[in-house]
Amino acid sequence: MVRNPEVALAMDWGGTWCRIAVINRSGDILWQSRVRNGPGAGQRELLDNGFSLVGEAEEWCGPSSTVAGLGIAIAGPIDADTGTLLEPPNLPALDGVSLLEEWQGRLSFPVYAGNDANLAALGEFEYGAGLEARQRGLPCTCLVYVTVSTGIGGGVVERGRMILGSRGMATEVGHMVLDRSPNAPLCQCGRRGCLEALASGTSIARIARYRVASTAPEVSARALSDSAPGEVTGLSVLAGLEVSQITAEQVFEAARDGDALASEILDEVLDSLSTGLSSLLHLYNPDLLVMGGGVSFGVVKMGLLPRIEEQVKLRAMSDGHRDFRLVSSRLGDTPGMMGAASLVWTGAG
Amino acid sequence: MVRNPEVALAMDWGGTWCRIAVINRSGDILWQSRVRNGPGAGQRELLDNGFSLVGEAEEWCGPSSTVAGLGIAIAGPIDADTGTLLEPPNLPALDGVSLLEEWQGRLSFPVYAGNDANLAALGEFEYGAGLEARQRGLPCTCLVYVTVSTGIGGGVVERGRMILGSRGMATEVGHMVLDRSPNAPLCQCGRRGCLEALASGTSIARIARYRVASTAPEVSARALSDSAPGEVTGLSVLAGLEVSQITAEQVFEAARDGDALASEILDEVLDSLSTGLSSLLHLYNPDLLVMGGGVSFGVVKMGLLPRIEEQVKLRAMSDGHRDFRLVSSRLGDTPGMMGAASLVWTGAG
Repeated sequence: MVRNPEVALAMDWGGTWCRIAVINRSGDILWQSRVRNGPGAGQRELLDNGFSLVGEAEEWCGPSSTVAGLGIAIAGPIDADTGTLLEPPNLPALDGVSLLEEWQGRLSFPVYAGNDANLAALGEFEYGAGLEARQRGLPCTCLVYVTVSTGIGGGVVERGRMILGSRGMATEVGHMVLDRSPNAPLCQCGRRGCLEALASGTSIARIARYRVASTAPEVSARALSDSAPGEVTGLSVLAGLEVSQITAEQVFEAARDGDALASEILDEVLDSLSTGLSSLLHLYNPDLLVMGGGVSFGVVKMGLLPRIEEQVKLRAMSDGHRDFRLVSSRLGDTPGMMGAASLVWTGAG
Repeated sequence: MVRNPEVALAMDWGGTWCRIAVINRSGDILWQSRVRNGPGAGQRELLDNGFSLVGEAEEWCGPSSTVAGLGIAIAGPIDADTGTLLEPPNLPALDGVSLLEEWQGRLSFPVYAGNDANLAALGEFEYGAGLEARQRGLPCTCLVYVTVSTGIGGGVVERGRMILGSRGMATEVGHMVLDRSPNAPLCQCGRRGCLEALASGTSIARIARYRVASTAPEVSARALSDSAPGEVTGLSVLAGLEVSQITAEQVFEAARDGDALASEILDEVLDSLSTGLSSLLHLYNPDLLVMGGGVSFGVVKMGLLPRIEEQVKLRAMSDGHRDFRLVSSRLGDTPGMMGAASLVWTGAG
């Protein structure tokens, strides 16, 4: 009897969307769907919507494929052993919920769950930058994945295994303190001077808003009136924007166009990021460092990845720590989902 | 046939001494010996001395016990797979040497080697604080060991396994950057603002020397002449010492006696240490944090461990990270050696 081809169901539950995909052993996404987390939706509604997606995926698979399991990557701290969500900042209604307990009894295949940043590292290791490295004959013994987006998170796959820590809450790389000065920027975690407070998308926007707001308006006006048409040296295009609305993307765009203030802000952010990444070299000793998330894609688009790699290597304490490659995520916005599929394949053996 | 009891030979090779012990499965040290690394001794002499110790240990065991293997904890970066030493700062003559290659062919039992701080974590996990926790019914899923001595190092045992990284050089916890200001103190690794540059024994001494030296001598003299005999408020006992000779121990002693300057220095150091340890919570999510090394023993003697635990918990980003206990090393100056023995038992199965 020929067995039907096995597939994994992989869910990626973020703050805005709950996505699901059917993925085969080779990592091909065969089908996907998603549902929006209704703003203000309660726990029951969110769980029902998520479970409907699972049903939809099963239905798509039909009798012709065997579902090996469901893997769930979720945006928030999750107990690695029980699958219980612990105060997920972007999914507060799911606090204290274990998706394993909720769904395992209702499904005929095993359910696995993990934090989305940890699983993104696993996804990159199995199907992304790690796979590419192996295909090129380069080892990948320790992969550190860092996502720089509105926040900064990460995951580590060391010798084939995710580093989880006691509760599955390890590798919160955005919350190492880099700046202990009393006026260091506040982080959303409540402390000051975390990497996330210095180099996330939110921080880039905040720094730009602060700089523009603290430039005396008369200086801006003088710079404008003194300059010949088209010659706006000294005045940042950022100053022409509604201060409270400035975004990280706009800072990137302005820097790309040679704007001095935007470039200065970006230099500072990259310096913070390089310092943070160099600490990660010493803490995890990766041979592959993978950057994902929106800010990283901005960095890649500007061709700045080699500069970051150089800065990080300069700060490495030894050749053994310097011996790594920095690459951008190979999985776009699906590393967490691919990692969730990997969980299923690891469980299925 | 009754098999002779198995023992492990465990070596701890530091900058000054090369020590060896015969240890049984229960972790009892049955016998030990050591040899001083001759100052300026070359590679051959060091290796011969070390190998003589192994012979001495074998001889002590005699025919009545079976040697299961030799485990070596070595002070310096070591390639986890080949056992090759990589620029060990305190054993420069052994740079590029693999003790495994040197000795395996000459011994009838397997040889294992690892970095002493990583192995100290393993030793604490198997025979020290981790064992004590298990005996008390408390889990130890992730143990982070931090040694605060002349330098700051560490190791992590997560879910029963040491975190090694790609080359065995992970968990260099002393070399996360905590202070990015341009005048942050220089670290011996060549960078500025590392945890080691802020909170090691060397740093405590350096901070004290700087503070004493930068106090204007006339102020000190005035304070002395103004005060009645025995009433030296405002003047630190540290000021009475030869500046270039002030040690961390003297700062601890003075603080214990209520000296204001010494207490202020210690407060700063503990603040740096707490900040560093809180970053480790977020990076490794330990449930057991173990402090060893000379400075830690000073901290314990002054009853300051609960204060550090409190400061670290205050800085934790979530309850899941806050859920740990801070204890002092249970293995005195032998955690590395006990970890080396554990390597043997792991290999022996």
